[in-house]
Amino acid sequence: MPAQIDFKSGSEVRSACRNGELTGQTSGLAPGYAQANLVVLPREYAFDFLLFCQRNPKPCPLLDVTEPGETSPLRAAPAADLRTDLPRYRVWRNGKLADEPGDVSSLWRDDLVSFVIGCSFTFEAAMLRAGLPVRHVEQGCNVPMYKTNIACDPAGCFSGPLVVSMRPMTHSQAVQAVQVTSRYPQVHGAPVHFGEPSLIGVGDLSRPDFGDAVEVRDGEIPVYWACGVTPQCALMNAGVPFAITHSPGCMFVTDLLDESLAIG
Amino acid sequence: MPAQIDFKSGSEVRSACRNGELTGQTSGLAPGYAQANLVVLPREYAFDFLLFCQRNPKPCPLLDVTEPGETSPLRAAPAADLRTDLPRYRVWRNGKLADEPGDVSSLWRDDLVSFVIGCSFTFEAAMLRAGLPVRHVEQGCNVPMYKTNIACDPAGCFSGPLVVSMRPMTHSQAVQAVQVTSRYPQVHGAPVHFGEPSLIGVGDLSRPDFGDAVEVRDGEIPVYWACGVTPQCALMNAGVPFAITHSPGCMFVTDLLDESLAIG
Repeated sequence: MPAQIDFKSGSEVRSACRNGELTGQTSGLAPGYAQANLVVLPREYAFDFLLFCQRNPKPCPLLDVTEPGETSPLRAAPAADLRTDLPRYRVWRNGKLADEPGDVSSLWRDDLVSFVIGCSFTFEAAMLRAGLPVRHVEQGCNVPMYKTNIACDPAGCFSGPLVVSMRPMTHSQAVQAVQVTSRYPQVHGAPVHFGEPSLIGVGDLSRPDFGDAVEVRDGEIPVYWACGVTPQCALMNAGVPFAITHSPGCMFVTDLLDESLAIG
Repeated sequence: MPAQIDFKSGSEVRSACRNGELTGQTSGLAPGYAQANLVVLPREYAFDFLLFCQRNPKPCPLLDVTEPGETSPLRAAPAADLRTDLPRYRVWRNGKLADEPGDVSSLWRDDLVSFVIGCSFTFEAAMLRAGLPVRHVEQGCNVPMYKTNIACDPAGCFSGPLVVSMRPMTHSQAVQAVQVTSRYPQVHGAPVHFGEPSLIGVGDLSRPDFGDAVEVRDGEIPVYWACGVTPQCALMNAGVPFAITHSPGCMFVTDLLDESLAIG
């Protein structure tokens, strides 16, 4: 159970990824350090994708974007190597999942631009400090994620549905969760919806599109946040010839402190 | 004095620009409607410039970015025409100011991408509502703007100094100005500095680099906000073959309500 290893910093998590010791999901690891989604694309697609992020800041809040070919995100974790420091990657060819390796060094190219996109795992530490439940952390599994019927604002070749992560809680906890997570706009911020899943085109909560199902107890409602898997759907739709992303739940842990991203 | 015409909306200001009735600065016009800087660049430079904005959100807060060739900013003012709806433009060739026309229709190209960048004129209505002084509005002139010795975070071919706008006020008013303007991060937000100009490399306050000097009264300190002329300096430094911007102080007035941009 990687979640039981006591990682004290983003740097320690990244070392464990680089050494092959950590190959699974990162929720709950190195509490206090911001976690991030990764999208790596050829320079040719970088303007359209950056524009997609700019137009869809809730699912795609940018923590850092590299110059073409750079392997370290200088603002989010200057000593990191994006080719080795995630537990698991996804490699996409022509919009289709081609491989899911633990290292992408051999695939690196000088024209690749890396997008480091805030992840909601970041505000889970703040939720826990406020006494709010984070069910997938309790259950030691990955957060459940669902495709919705809410369309992202398209940009160039990129378009697709908003993907959400879901955390169940009571109504009064949901109010507090809005307050707590609103302070973190750079890691998806406030929820986009709560309650009845069909209102956002989600069918069976027990069958998430990504990640693992979690228990929704009596008196609880599902609360949904914009999710960094959204850009993966946009990549699939665009059929980009080549791209690399993180594997869902297996995030890039940065040097940025959660609280350095908080407002208000 | 254009400032005395009673414009009720962004649309009315833009009509007056289109008809050639308004050719001067826009501070104080159509109170409540967000004003914006404009940068128009060939697609070839659009990724680097978008990255420059992403890395420097205080001077370059993006309200809208168009697809290549689009003449209307669909999110900020869908019925507007960016080629005619500003009072005055600047045309840049190889990083040098080439012309300052009132209309750029004849220069338009299918590969031009337009960046609509929030302007601090937007939060002046909120400052006035809070009883704070806005000296250049009182004096009926353009806001004074200064190049600082603070370097922007470079991106691709773009780099340069942070440019600031300045508004003088008392110390206690400065505290309140921090509170008021912090609510508007998409139009430069909180001040970047206050007090002694030499600490940010500004020499003589009576000789601004752009705009007009304003009176600083006894007991007042200068308060500085990041300014949307910053990207014009980056354009000059990059020596981009062709670009169009607004003329300093002669902004694009959007359909966005100031309060729709407020947080907290």
